[in-house]
Amino acid sequence: MAQKTAIPKGTRDFSPQEMAKRNYIFNTIKEVYELFGFHQIETPAMENLSTLMGKYGDEGDKLLFKVLNSGDYLKKANKDDLSEGNSNSVSTQISEKGLRYDLTVPFARYVVQHRNDIQFPFKRYQIQPVWRADRPQKGRYREFFQCDADVIGSNSLMNEVELIQIIDRVFHKLGINITIKINNRKILAGIAEAIGYPEKLIDITVAMDKIDKIGPDAVYEEMKARGISEDSVSMLEPFMNLQGNSNNAKFNCLREFVGESAIGNIGTLEIEEIFDRLKPFELHNEVELDLTLARGLSYYTGAIIEVVANDIKMGSICGGGRYDDLTGIFGLKDVSGVGVSFGADRIYDVLNELDAFPKESLSGTKVLILNFGKEEEKEAIKILDKIRNNNIASELYPSSAKMKKQMTYANHNSIPFVIMAGSTELESGLLTLKNMINGEQSSLTINDIIEQIK
Amino acid sequence: MAQKTAIPKGTRDFSPQEMAKRNYIFNTIKEVYELFGFHQIETPAMENLSTLMGKYGDEGDKLLFKVLNSGDYLKKANKDDLSEGNSNSVSTQISEKGLRYDLTVPFARYVVQHRNDIQFPFKRYQIQPVWRADRPQKGRYREFFQCDADVIGSNSLMNEVELIQIIDRVFHKLGINITIKINNRKILAGIAEAIGYPEKLIDITVAMDKIDKIGPDAVYEEMKARGISEDSVSMLEPFMNLQGNSNNAKFNCLREFVGESAIGNIGTLEIEEIFDRLKPFELHNEVELDLTLARGLSYYTGAIIEVVANDIKMGSICGGGRYDDLTGIFGLKDVSGVGVSFGADRIYDVLNELDAFPKESLSGTKVLILNFGKEEEKEAIKILDKIRNNNIASELYPSSAKMKKQMTYANHNSIPFVIMAGSTELESGLLTLKNMINGEQSSLTINDIIEQIK
Repeated sequence: MAQKTAIPKGTRDFSPQEMAKRNYIFNTIKEVYELFGFHQIETPAMENLSTLMGKYGDEGDKLLFKVLNSGDYLKKANKDDLSEGNSNSVSTQISEKGLRYDLTVPFARYVVQHRNDIQFPFKRYQIQPVWRADRPQKGRYREFFQCDADVIGSNSLMNEVELIQIIDRVFHKLGINITIKINNRKILAGIAEAIGYPEKLIDITVAMDKIDKIGPDAVYEEMKARGISEDSVSMLEPFMNLQGNSNNAKFNCLREFVGESAIGNIGTLEIEEIFDRLKPFELHNEVELDLTLARGLSYYTGAIIEVVANDIKMGSICGGGRYDDLTGIFGLKDVSGVGVSFGADRIYDVLNELDAFPKESLSGTKVLILNFGKEEEKEAIKILDKIRNNNIASELYPSSAKMKKQMTYANHNSIPFVIMAGSTELESGLLTLKNMINGEQSSLTINDIIEQIK
Repeated sequence: MAQKTAIPKGTRDFSPQEMAKRNYIFNTIKEVYELFGFHQIETPAMENLSTLMGKYGDEGDKLLFKVLNSGDYLKKANKDDLSEGNSNSVSTQISEKGLRYDLTVPFARYVVQHRNDIQFPFKRYQIQPVWRADRPQKGRYREFFQCDADVIGSNSLMNEVELIQIIDRVFHKLGINITIKINNRKILAGIAEAIGYPEKLIDITVAMDKIDKIGPDAVYEEMKARGISEDSVSMLEPFMNLQGNSNNAKFNCLREFVGESAIGNIGTLEIEEIFDRLKPFELHNEVELDLTLARGLSYYTGAIIEVVANDIKMGSICGGGRYDDLTGIFGLKDVSGVGVSFGADRIYDVLNELDAFPKESLSGTKVLILNFGKEEEKEAIKILDKIRNNNIASELYPSSAKMKKQMTYANHNSIPFVIMAGSTELESGLLTLKNMINGEQSSLTINDIIEQIK
């Protein structure tokens, strides 16, 4: 009986065509990371559950994929929990390992574990899959890739400046027009102070963060529902209407607004300094001060960065910020970090919608030699060897199948050139080169063919 | 309380230095695969257990990492099995997914699932981690990478020839001297026929395969213990002593030996044809007919290939062969495949022992600009931008830390050049470039520096 072939829901196979596109994105990001002095690390797919649990909230703990212990794993489980069917308690008794949920917690674990081998500041990048037992839906997968770069062990705002340059370069290379939005957690704290609710920072920013989705009026209603007085909410109104104004106008409004708040002032100065240091660079994209930007907020302590595509409606395609105590939970205190993460799957969708994958990044084999039979094959393999020695990806069709089948193979694999080396061609020394894109044929020596394909 | 930081046993973190070495190996293999017209695919880390179970024998089933179902997974489990602590039965009741054990079974599943989108012959390569719950020991990990290339849907022996060329090129590029050993399952079947025990093919070859480890006499004893008569064993003796003879001498002995066996003759002709077709190529390494080579054998049906390093004792560092019904179990019959797999971890160890990683493949950042303070930094970032626009990986130390600390950073990260741009240098326009390898310093314009580093 033949088995059904399927893969777990929320996971994907990547075909050669999809891999070419994905590699184009990953390689572009990698090149820029390396240009800026970031070094790659990798961590194992499985981490101890003790490393992962409690780091992503209760909801996150539920979304961890847990790996069953080997051997007679039930022996260690509590008999009562088993007979009562207490799945929650049993899971940590029969499972000690889980699949990586993001790259940030494994990185924090890595830094602490290898702290004696690391020279700070440590600039690392990491491109690996992560797994979440989320309900799969359009654009949300149970296995997906993250592309993170972080600098850890340096407070300098130069790092924020460089991360913004990295974002600008990556999307310029990819041909995607973007807006880089920045804000600062301290500004948000200053705003909360200024309207008299420093303790309600989270409530205020969670509401503010929704302005693009639900509009200002609904935001005000939510704030009131979260216990902010009508007067304080109305103080925020000039602020909430700043969208579309210049960064300068926003800074003016901001300075006035947080004038009394020490933390608000620090945040304002930090972000002014970032803009100031960006001035000498000719960025390809706009950097916008967005005073409502919060991005979950929970672990950011300074800069907050988010990127949206200008020409396609797609949510955030890159984001990041500064966090001051990532490694604290693993026992290494007072290490500040700042990082960004590119959303490869969304970038893939944007490039597809824009039809912006460069053709040359997608073609694999450059030339196929048709196979006319045993005798011709003997010469064909010598031609092939010469082409390959010129570093041109090339193939000989492995058998003398019907011409139609061989040509279909070339078309299916988007091979741009086909060489015909039948007995006539081999006698004359002039091979037939067919350009599969425009259909043109020409008679050329092998050396000329190599020149032309190069 | 700080948590202990550790990773699951048998798994590894890869530091920037290790990643550079690993990427060098993977990229070398990738380049050659692509030069020969192979295309990359990727499959999910998790497969349905129904895809994986029963494909690797009973022992293999035990070594699969199983992933716990989400939610209230105990609800579906049999109450009696739970209370009896029957780990074996319970595991498939509470787990539907497992981690990939190799790349071959997922590839077979991929081919069948996507058969309508594939144009055969399908030449795919795949470089991904696999997971096995084996007992970890030196050189054996629970997470390790496989680098496979296979051609599926073509019977042509040209594929075997090309795979041998691929092996030859990869190891030549890596600078490892190797011997490529080849044999053919049909020859082994012919030998078993010739000595009168066609039904004992597996017993005979399992014993023969051990000759390098235990020597010929122990092999004969094992054969007798496996029920082969003394006469038949002694028929094999000339055969077993062929090690070190020329391929021609082996062919002569072989032809005489399997003369009567139809399958043995087919195998001999196949392998002769492979040698014949290899003749026009200037291989860098020796291809050796090894009539005792079996490599587990269970699923090979034609050629068997194995590679050993000549200068280091390290077991097989690459292997492969032809298998005729890989996709049958998933319902696609009569599709022949042939492939090779490079053992990246062992190749890594060989290159380390030979100290053969090229220095240029290991360096990341090419130049560090020292940070002398706020004022100098303003000019330094412009210099940095110019260097990066010339595609040279470069960094500015992010703060004006003590010089010693900045130089330590450069040394630790093996950065070959350091630029000093203090106030004197900036005034004169001549920057100080220090070569960190030989210690030489020179005063140069930024353009000259860029030329020199390039």
